[in-house]
Amino acid sequence: MKHAVLSALLSVAPFASLADPLPSWTQSDSKAAIVEFVQAVTDPDGPDYVTPADRVAVFDNDGTLWAEQPVYFQFIFAMDRLAAMAEQDPSILTTPTLKAAAEGDLATVLEGGHDALIEVVNASHSGVSVEAFQAAVADWLATTQHPDTGLPFDQMTYQPMVELLRYLRDEGFTTYIVSGGGLHFMRVFAEQAYGIPPEQILGTYGTTSYAQVDGVPTIVKEPGIAFIDDKEGKPINIERTLGKRPILAGGNSDGDFAMMEWTTAGDGPRLGVLVHHTDAEREWAYDRESPIGRLVDGLDKGPDMGWVIVDMAQDWSRIYTGAD
Amino acid sequence: MKHAVLSALLSVAPFASLADPLPSWTQSDSKAAIVEFVQAVTDPDGPDYVTPADRVAVFDNDGTLWAEQPVYFQFIFAMDRLAAMAEQDPSILTTPTLKAAAEGDLATVLEGGHDALIEVVNASHSGVSVEAFQAAVADWLATTQHPDTGLPFDQMTYQPMVELLRYLRDEGFTTYIVSGGGLHFMRVFAEQAYGIPPEQILGTYGTTSYAQVDGVPTIVKEPGIAFIDDKEGKPINIERTLGKRPILAGGNSDGDFAMMEWTTAGDGPRLGVLVHHTDAEREWAYDRESPIGRLVDGLDKGPDMGWVIVDMAQDWSRIYTGAD
Repeated sequence: MKHAVLSALLSVAPFASLADPLPSWTQSDSKAAIVEFVQAVTDPDGPDYVTPADRVAVFDNDGTLWAEQPVYFQFIFAMDRLAAMAEQDPSILTTPTLKAAAEGDLATVLEGGHDALIEVVNASHSGVSVEAFQAAVADWLATTQHPDTGLPFDQMTYQPMVELLRYLRDEGFTTYIVSGGGLHFMRVFAEQAYGIPPEQILGTYGTTSYAQVDGVPTIVKEPGIAFIDDKEGKPINIERTLGKRPILAGGNSDGDFAMMEWTTAGDGPRLGVLVHHTDAEREWAYDRESPIGRLVDGLDKGPDMGWVIVDMAQDWSRIYTGAD
Repeated sequence: MKHAVLSALLSVAPFASLADPLPSWTQSDSKAAIVEFVQAVTDPDGPDYVTPADRVAVFDNDGTLWAEQPVYFQFIFAMDRLAAMAEQDPSILTTPTLKAAAEGDLATVLEGGHDALIEVVNASHSGVSVEAFQAAVADWLATTQHPDTGLPFDQMTYQPMVELLRYLRDEGFTTYIVSGGGLHFMRVFAEQAYGIPPEQILGTYGTTSYAQVDGVPTIVKEPGIAFIDDKEGKPINIERTLGKRPILAGGNSDGDFAMMEWTTAGDGPRLGVLVHHTDAEREWAYDRESPIGRLVDGLDKGPDMGWVIVDMAQDWSRIYTGAD
């Protein structure tokens, strides 16, 4: 009799429920909607089946896959790198903005707005080969902690999103990052942090040149931003690079709106996943008024387009990969 | 006894020699060098083993994977499309160059040099959604023949190169096109012709916009060329898109020199494959003096860098996929 009961239990409990692919998500409507979508597009006998070649999922990075407060982590790197460069040669700090950045005076830099950010990135991200730049990023990630959490920056990835990426790949999706962050910066940690290889990372990029460095043909980072992968730039870059419209897009700010709108406007089953920062206790709570990660359009128009609005405080049982 | 002999024969003859992966290549030094390279990088016990993730092979398209005479096939499409557009609205032919192009007067257009080519491409490749443009390309490919061979253009792919692409993929490589030709144009036929999907095609691209067309978010082709994927642009675009240096590069003209130089200058085993157009009888013979596919640097410097120089007349037993 005991054996019969055990048998019956095993036969009715599908394996999937034993091994939850999204263990850091609570049993919420958000999770149910995501799982339902994945099951629909992978069911070869269902009306919404999508062939694996078209199971393309795109995700913003800052604020969607890892944290972005008090400022984009790449910008903290830029200031730290500028300070290190100025130790070797103080004459590079030619403007008040660069001086403030090298001193770590974020407030003063932010007062300068967009132009000041570009100035600091240009000064700290150019005049170096891609290889040497990426070695500097790797060194910084290995030796620097976030000012508030004390965690290494690449441990401040969102564990529920890391699980979602893995779940999608297990179900035959290809997962891409499409970020306003820098291409060369992200490629240093994204493969280990998210399982996303360099060729599946799209981002903002500066001008590069093809040069002979010590007699070896080398790609060198030059001043000047060649492409900003934000807002309308995101769908433009995806179409240019992939040649197809994704079926799933994840984001968290107005910079992701066009990408998510374009994705979910396509024919057939589509899903938008909007991460709403609602957890002031475990992370940060911000949306409409935040200078970093401002979110208005997605909250106003996303629900009507069928997007899943993820409530971080309610829907995630765990936040950071690097902290329980 | 008979069975014993058969057994012995089967045991010494490796399967690979029974099924030649490159049947349209003669038993030449070129073929031997390619096979030797592939065997070296795929032998897990050998000193030159390369992990599959790094088995990246890049190929030019015009003159390397398909023919390019008397002018790039995309340019014949551009002239045909301009003529079709002018039938609807003759007022679009605002300059002598555009009038000549719409009349199919290639000689006059070519006299205008680079600027004339850009003018014709701009006029024929913009003001249309990517989807509608690609439908026009597909229609043109299905209904137009090459003026000399009478073959559909997408049957003028080089069968030996189609076999090489397949062989490389069978051996764990990822194959990319990196062409001076247009991204949206190539994506229409490359998957069927070469087995290369849209996201593995890099090329020249025009400006695009994100627009609402009949209420649907759409990517629209605009006038103006945003990036020319030629010469130094090729390694720059590969690094930007893939984030890694390939281990094999194939090309046929000076426009491919930087890509092949960058590829073969990397550490470890590398291979350059330069297609030399030597077959005036079955194809075209041209190199140093040709306005299309000019080849000087590769012939002068390639051999010293260990590149395989493919002699089409000697090394290929068959030329076009669409003709024996």
